[in-house]
Amino acid sequence: MTPTPEQDAALSPIMKAPIARQVFVCTGSSCAANGSEAVLAAFRALLTERQVLFQKGSTDGTVLCTTCGSVGFCAIGPAVLVYPDGVWYAHVRPEDVPELVEAHILGGEPVARLVRKRVG
Amino acid sequence: MTPTPEQDAALSPIMKAPIARQVFVCTGSSCAANGSEAVLAAFRALLTERQVLFQKGSTDGTVLCTTCGSVGFCAIGPAVLVYPDGVWYAHVRPEDVPELVEAHILGGEPVARLVRKRVG
Repeated sequence: MTPTPEQDAALSPIMKAPIARQVFVCTGSSCAANGSEAVLAAFRALLTERQVLFQKGSTDGTVLCTTCGSVGFCAIGPAVLVYPDGVWYAHVRPEDVPELVEAHILGGEPVARLVRKRVG
Repeated sequence: MTPTPEQDAALSPIMKAPIARQVFVCTGSSCAANGSEAVLAAFRALLTERQVLFQKGSTDGTVLCTTCGSVGFCAIGPAVLVYPDGVWYAHVRPEDVPELVEAHILGGEPVARLVRKRVG
């Protein structure tokens, strides 16, 4: 039998966390070769500093930040996806992360100069 | 200078693809140990059969299917996320994939018995 949601919630604190947005940083081979790990690190550091990152010891965070596999932005990466907004960014560098966090992740306004696709 | 969207579109066909949904299958270590690669393969096979998967040679596909890193469902995986819907599934097995594809990915109705979180 599949466990119930109540049973699962005891094992998975994120089930009750108030996640509002999820940031995916592509770590496919092309994006990785273009520095996406540094972009991921920059997001995690700044989101931690702003006290919004969901992570161990901070389970009331409203933002989750994970890797993802290739989305076809191989030639224009590093790619960063923000959902549920459905906004895809290309050419993201660590120095773009403060603007992306303040304007979009916290402020709700996508950063138009780096947007290359909208989903949904 | 950052390339323009027009320049990027010539290099990245997915920019013009009519993607309606993205399915993320967690391949973090716990989900992988619980069979998430087989879940990913099942999604890709069925979405290909239904002619909706965006992939090389099928760039008008409306569904993208990729991996993602851990989302904190480690104890209740394999985890599958569907965006922009913001629906997270737990305990997904390859045999659940036909229902998830037909009801939700193609039909728009999440499969309640496996939903364990909603985002956004």
